[in-house]
Amino acid sequence: MNDLTLVPQALTDAAFAPFGEVIQADGRRHFPINDGQVQRFHDLATVDVQSAGGRPGISLFVARPYALPLALRWMERHPLSSQAFQPLDERPFLVVVAPAGETPSAGNIRAFVSDGRQGVNYRRGVWHHPLIAFGVEQTFVVIDRIGEDANCDLHAFDDGARPWLQAPD
Amino acid sequence: MNDLTLVPQALTDAAFAPFGEVIQADGRRHFPINDGQVQRFHDLATVDVQSAGGRPGISLFVARPYALPLALRWMERHPLSSQAFQPLDERPFLVVVAPAGETPSAGNIRAFVSDGRQGVNYRRGVWHHPLIAFGVEQTFVVIDRIGEDANCDLHAFDDGARPWLQAPD
Repeated sequence: MNDLTLVPQALTDAAFAPFGEVIQADGRRHFPINDGQVQRFHDLATVDVQSAGGRPGISLFVARPYALPLALRWMERHPLSSQAFQPLDERPFLVVVAPAGETPSAGNIRAFVSDGRQGVNYRRGVWHHPLIAFGVEQTFVVIDRIGEDANCDLHAFDDGARPWLQAPD
Repeated sequence: MNDLTLVPQALTDAAFAPFGEVIQADGRRHFPINDGQVQRFHDLATVDVQSAGGRPGISLFVARPYALPLALRWMERHPLSSQAFQPLDERPFLVVVAPAGETPSAGNIRAFVSDGRQGVNYRRGVWHHPLIAFGVEQTFVVIDRIGEDANCDLHAFDDGARPWLQAPD
């Protein structure tokens, strides 16, 4: 362990705003469509994927669970695009982020726990750890950039400075 | 009732190919990412949303259930864009479609049942009924076009020619 211990906090709009959007129906603008049969919670995330010839794509990520607590080894960022994740298994998962334009450090890394219905959209350049499933394998639908350019930077933590991620309460 | 009774069939790639893509992991190309922790099932649907100044958006649709059997009243199409739906509740739902460029009729309407994990992406112009949840309210994440132009045509069935949709087996 070291002096950076991350305790996941609830995923709220206000707390997550520096990093992107929480994708959820609660509290969002909506309107009826299809003769009132459906409520549309409209345009919940900024899909920013078209730089340098990119295009939007839909993929599925199947994530093996991590054991918690977890010593993080690295974070990544996509300099050309946003990346959105929506959970399909209604199970909590952990989100670890640091602001775009800074180096991830003890002072700026934040950890959140999704309630299993909430998705997230990382703004372009936001540092993030791969999504952290725990307990069971989890599947996410992912909306991100399809393109040929290099679009993933890594920041590896020194062995003595690996952030230590706690299990949520 | 009339002479068009629709019996939902299983949602398979081959059967759905004239209308778009089935979004699922089974049988799809995938590769490891994040140091092997995640399998990426890559680029599963053609997101075609940028005509006439459109951009991609992520929304949530909360759909009230229909009672089955159901006499369909109309179908719709989006002349400018594709539209993808991924279920978040792991419950079966029904998909009713007819090919782009034709008028929906007894000869070309097809009904499918998703297993509750399978999503669908309608190709631009494909006629479709709003998704048909049954039994319980269901939520879907939707990837479609955000834009100002009119992008929804309706085809109303004559009262005597409403297709009759059966419950799945």
